[in-house]
Amino acid sequence: SPTHRDAKLKMTKAEIIARISEVVSFARACVDDVEFSPEDAIRTEHDFLQEAVAAAIEAGATTINIPDTVGYATPGEITSLFRMLTAKAPPHIVFSAHCHDDLGMAVANSLAAVLGGARQIECAINGIGERAGNCSLEEAVMALCVRRDVFGVTTGVDTTKLHPASQALSRITHSPVPRNKAIVGRNAFAHEAGIHQHGVLADKRTYEIMDAESVGVPSNMLVLGKHSGKHAVGARLKALGFDVSAQRVEDLFPDFKRLADTCREVTDADLVRLATGDARVDGRVGPWRMRRTELRVDWEDGTKPYARITMEHDNGERRTVSHEGEGPVDAAFAAVCAVTGVPGVISILDLHHIATEGVVRAEAIVEVEGELYSGKAREVDIADAAVAAFVAAINQAVSLRAANPRRIKMAAGA
Amino acid sequence: SPTHRDAKLKMTKAEIIARISEVVSFARACVDDVEFSPEDAIRTEHDFLQEAVAAAIEAGATTINIPDTVGYATPGEITSLFRMLTAKAPPHIVFSAHCHDDLGMAVANSLAAVLGGARQIECAINGIGERAGNCSLEEAVMALCVRRDVFGVTTGVDTTKLHPASQALSRITHSPVPRNKAIVGRNAFAHEAGIHQHGVLADKRTYEIMDAESVGVPSNMLVLGKHSGKHAVGARLKALGFDVSAQRVEDLFPDFKRLADTCREVTDADLVRLATGDARVDGRVGPWRMRRTELRVDWEDGTKPYARITMEHDNGERRTVSHEGEGPVDAAFAAVCAVTGVPGVISILDLHHIATEGVVRAEAIVEVEGELYSGKAREVDIADAAVAAFVAAINQAVSLRAANPRRIKMAAGA
Repeated sequence: SPTHRDAKLKMTKAEIIARISEVVSFARACVDDVEFSPEDAIRTEHDFLQEAVAAAIEAGATTINIPDTVGYATPGEITSLFRMLTAKAPPHIVFSAHCHDDLGMAVANSLAAVLGGARQIECAINGIGERAGNCSLEEAVMALCVRRDVFGVTTGVDTTKLHPASQALSRITHSPVPRNKAIVGRNAFAHEAGIHQHGVLADKRTYEIMDAESVGVPSNMLVLGKHSGKHAVGARLKALGFDVSAQRVEDLFPDFKRLADTCREVTDADLVRLATGDARVDGRVGPWRMRRTELRVDWEDGTKPYARITMEHDNGERRTVSHEGEGPVDAAFAAVCAVTGVPGVISILDLHHIATEGVVRAEAIVEVEGELYSGKAREVDIADAAVAAFVAAINQAVSLRAANPRRIKMAAGA
Repeated sequence: SPTHRDAKLKMTKAEIIARISEVVSFARACVDDVEFSPEDAIRTEHDFLQEAVAAAIEAGATTINIPDTVGYATPGEITSLFRMLTAKAPPHIVFSAHCHDDLGMAVANSLAAVLGGARQIECAINGIGERAGNCSLEEAVMALCVRRDVFGVTTGVDTTKLHPASQALSRITHSPVPRNKAIVGRNAFAHEAGIHQHGVLADKRTYEIMDAESVGVPSNMLVLGKHSGKHAVGARLKALGFDVSAQRVEDLFPDFKRLADTCREVTDADLVRLATGDARVDGRVGPWRMRRTELRVDWEDGTKPYARITMEHDNGERRTVSHEGEGPVDAAFAAVCAVTGVPGVISILDLHHIATEGVVRAEAIVEVEGELYSGKAREVDIADAAVAAFVAAINQAVSLRAANPRRIKMAAGA
């Protein structure tokens, strides 16, 4: 663009064209597929952009990427621009779009490029990237898939890997996926409004244009709430290790609905409480429960933070262990492992303080010898919530390892 | 749509038209402005939709809202549909768009409706709403503002209220705004890539299409990083209560850049450490520091969780207090208040566990007698991080209340 030319490159148009020819020719002498990408192409004068693209193609570029570097374009502009560029280029050239989301249009703009002839989209899982991020891969893929009637192209992407990929990236970047993120957010397939409930129960096509299964949401990640049916409840109970009959699910269902009406989301722990009739507040799924916790940090005497915890097994056995750690809660995690004999390591720990409800929701993913276990908890205190979620994950490990020593690993970074 | 007609309403087309006339007439008899909104309009046959809209207008509807209930439309379809509908309607009718983000196109679709003649957009701050949410108000407003050349309309929205509104909603819903959310995310105005750094330093228009100030991002919310200039660093130091000369900022700047290169984001606590030459790890901004923490929970003996903490003031005074709480960390917060004499209540507590860095980042917003103070901390442990962030907020309260008893309140829910 003129701004980039004057402020950053400090080159004239002619100098830029000469440099493009030189650099692209050199690159093409080294490799077969050369991608040329003129920064801030969207804000560049169309005639000069065409000249630059022609020079690059002349010099051997095979892929032409048109970036909307500042996230400025609208879909209509993008389609016109790509139509103009593709019309004048030889058929073997692949046009590509690189869109930023500064005005919230990265996905629509990338798809508009496809309408204009682009056959490559530069996008990122979860839409990560500079500033407001880039085109979200999962949204673009599913839009091309759901609206193939409009776009007429296929991507070759296995859509059932979208959710696991999103989760893996979220773990690596430690950026939680927003609840209402399209396709991969926790709420993307949840229907809460009363008006929608009616429709979904009658025919889920009324409000769903794609299945959660088609994007690889594991059944245990689907939020159980007031719209969940008996089938979903039964399947989750089975996944939690309960051998429940259809009649038993039928019997439990009214209580499930009551609970869902009160607290929107019914957690695994809630479900276990329902199934076992266990009113204990720690919501555990497994044999161990926390009895006493003592955490200590001293910034002066040079000792490491430590925790002393007491836990009780269903068989009545009590164990007390003191353990050091990097911090008091970290020490408590280590002590829980020592008590239970399960070598767990925190893989992810998400905490959400919900002031309106006066609670902290915690979710811990704990790795035990290469397998992942998850535990959730709702407590009024951060430390309690973190420890309770950890204990829930360890309990899950104990139960599931006992039930099936060769269970399938949870998708971890894959 | 046919699906809704058959599965949910169980009505024929003729029955629906009759019902529209009846209901709209009744509404119009009660009020002057009646909005008619045919659910899932996008998937409805165009001729039947036109018939329905005509019936509603005939019966007295003044606003016609066209919802993309399932988030299925593309911008091109929306523009055509609105052009078709507006062309046949009397000029006093206001057309409205209601778009969902299931395929990531809610904003682009709403703007496409404006291009097609819509003059009302139904949108939500932070894009909240059913499933993947609705059109994000802040993105739509800024797109209409930045791209007025394309859309040719004004909104009347005071854009400097967008960021405060987003923050307020985030507090109320206790959903953190994603870092890379357009317009209102923490990273929306941060430039990290090296290639961009060069351009922004030369002329910020190379990568910025709008100013952070224009959307009301308070200067103390802007991320200080390697692209921040001396002016920004000086302004932040001043805001933190340091009376620094231009020469002092000049002297500190190389250290600031080194720090920014290492840890990307330079926090207020980092800045205070730089300014004071204080190497203490607690990163506090104020007179109090934590010396010892003991947290205790006993689920058996019926006692309430309690914390015993020891803190030291800059003047050498030490105080130790034991306090009960809803949980151990909650008790520690109460004990910190008792020690410092500052009646603080947690308003928001955000924790992010960053496994790759082995740290927990905590940010606490603490309310003290109607004013909000914020504290941040980076610690390896959840409890440590939460308490440190709380102490930082209390220290900020102590310092700022001493410096300026009538300071302007932080925007809280406004």
